[in-house]
Amino acid sequence: MKAFEKNIRRVEPYVPGEQPQRKVIKLNTNENPYPPAPGVWKAMQEMDPDRLRLYPDPTAESLVDALAEFYGVGRDQVFVGVGSDDVLSMCFLTFFNSEKPIFFPDITYSFYKVWAELYRIPYECQKLDEDFKIVKEDYYRENGGVIFPNPNAPTAIYEDLDFVEDILMHNQDVIVIVDEAYIDFAGRSALELIDKYENLIVVQTFSKARSMAGMRIGYAISNPKLIKYLNDAKYSFNSYTMNQTSLLYGVEAVKDREYFEETVQKIVDTREWAKGELAKLGFEFPDSRANFIFATHPNYDAKELFEALKKHDIYVRFWGSERIEQYLRITVGTKEEMQILFDFLREYINNK
Amino acid sequence: MKAFEKNIRRVEPYVPGEQPQRKVIKLNTNENPYPPAPGVWKAMQEMDPDRLRLYPDPTAESLVDALAEFYGVGRDQVFVGVGSDDVLSMCFLTFFNSEKPIFFPDITYSFYKVWAELYRIPYECQKLDEDFKIVKEDYYRENGGVIFPNPNAPTAIYEDLDFVEDILMHNQDVIVIVDEAYIDFAGRSALELIDKYENLIVVQTFSKARSMAGMRIGYAISNPKLIKYLNDAKYSFNSYTMNQTSLLYGVEAVKDREYFEETVQKIVDTREWAKGELAKLGFEFPDSRANFIFATHPNYDAKELFEALKKHDIYVRFWGSERIEQYLRITVGTKEEMQILFDFLREYINNK
Repeated sequence: MKAFEKNIRRVEPYVPGEQPQRKVIKLNTNENPYPPAPGVWKAMQEMDPDRLRLYPDPTAESLVDALAEFYGVGRDQVFVGVGSDDVLSMCFLTFFNSEKPIFFPDITYSFYKVWAELYRIPYECQKLDEDFKIVKEDYYRENGGVIFPNPNAPTAIYEDLDFVEDILMHNQDVIVIVDEAYIDFAGRSALELIDKYENLIVVQTFSKARSMAGMRIGYAISNPKLIKYLNDAKYSFNSYTMNQTSLLYGVEAVKDREYFEETVQKIVDTREWAKGELAKLGFEFPDSRANFIFATHPNYDAKELFEALKKHDIYVRFWGSERIEQYLRITVGTKEEMQILFDFLREYINNK
Repeated sequence: MKAFEKNIRRVEPYVPGEQPQRKVIKLNTNENPYPPAPGVWKAMQEMDPDRLRLYPDPTAESLVDALAEFYGVGRDQVFVGVGSDDVLSMCFLTFFNSEKPIFFPDITYSFYKVWAELYRIPYECQKLDEDFKIVKEDYYRENGGVIFPNPNAPTAIYEDLDFVEDILMHNQDVIVIVDEAYIDFAGRSALELIDKYENLIVVQTFSKARSMAGMRIGYAISNPKLIKYLNDAKYSFNSYTMNQTSLLYGVEAVKDREYFEETVQKIVDTREWAKGELAKLGFEFPDSRANFIFATHPNYDAKELFEALKKHDIYVRFWGSERIEQYLRITVGTKEEMQILFDFLREYINNK
């Protein structure tokens, strides 16, 4: 090893789902099967290219204002970043500086562990129960902070607001982050609790319900004090994270509430129908409240099925890691895409 | 103070130059006065909006390939990020983990200090000499890493390749980063040295010579080993940092070498003319090799002049910090913009 290599930080990187370049049935990264709101298309056409030569507004004011209006909060209660990954990573860096371990579920969004290790934050994973449900009592012990997704990923299980509030009530001395990437497909948001618990941060994204995974926009909503700390940290990294197109298209995507609600409803309808189809085929899964279904089949090996699907250009997600080695995460696509999936599964099962 | 505030990381954020929303003569943030390459305009018009719903390619392959081809290096030698700020910040986190202080100039890009403090990296500033020049011998002592811009900012002074190589020769056991945001306006790049020094990282940006400050694209070029470490760190933060529009427009901006060279030449020509005009008005400045001029006037207070300019909708940059309290940084705009500036300065001087 060369001397200059001695002080290089080595990390085990997160491995994202594949982004195949060919045309496939892509049910592996929880993208929205429908395009962004029509206003986004229009903004693309009408954007003045000269705008690209200028630095974007570092405060992202236009986008912050649009979100504040949509959610009925103050503009000083909204923080935006390059996808909710950027927002969450900033939250870890800013808020989790205790000597005590932060708590999150053992089966959850795998980036939590990566950030904790990157920033050298002590952490302790709390085991989901046999039905993959969060055991809220596990979060009542002393800790350095709490984070969990609701609905949880990749289980798709949603816990109601009373459950979330129980965790908050028992954790008023630390920051609690509720990661709501999939909340629009699920039910009531913890946003209802932000005035009541000033240690609560709710993180959401444009990648799922707003059909803009490709634009990388995420946001946190909390009280003005915590949002200010987040902005200070962000300005220390990179003042201009949101580029001109993200700002412009982001505003258009937020403005169109009707399109947003319609799109979400279509996906929820497809999901409910897909649950029935999967059940008919003998699959088992926790009740999904997200835009994906976390399914297993008692008679077929998940890895083999994953490979077979892939061979037929149907991409789903498979991890093969502890406790979930027999599970596949299947994104809810269009009804047509799901039909192709079910046709394949039916044949697969009949021929085995 | 609430208990949950105890473990919040508090940082002194970097304060970026103003981004006025009104139409002004904007010579305060070193943006390019010319629009991006025509291919970028075309890509904007032709982009399929459906692409926005999909996650971008986390490896940013298309953009990496375009840069590798442009600079004649391997695709495994290129790392891209959300502006050179993101790239540099990743470099600090990844490469500067020594107990010994990293070295950089006392008057330089002010983000270096911010990142060092954010990541708790010890650092030691080396004083520029009376003419604002880097004293290379100051960098020959033992250290934990070296970073300097060439041309330096905000002085605009360029040092030739022999000078850069002297620093490299004396620092083969640590990582040396040459921050070349302004190199295209200056002269030979340290890229010529990357095969010779495997501890060298060269960082450049699309914000200046490529007219894309608004898109937030920066890159590092080095040997495959160091680029891999950078990518590992990046994937730990956020796998998908470059959004779909950055990838698409970035490729178009790199492809058009002729437009790039023409634009740079126009700015260099304007700069050379502007130096003469400023000298005629009695200003003094180090010889600029960047797209800005760092100027002082023996008879007029910089802060007063800065305020007077601003009142007339001419924005330049002023810090008022130690050693440079009498200096203004003036971006080289179009010839027309500079003419308005000089007309104002002439009147200001005549009426004082």
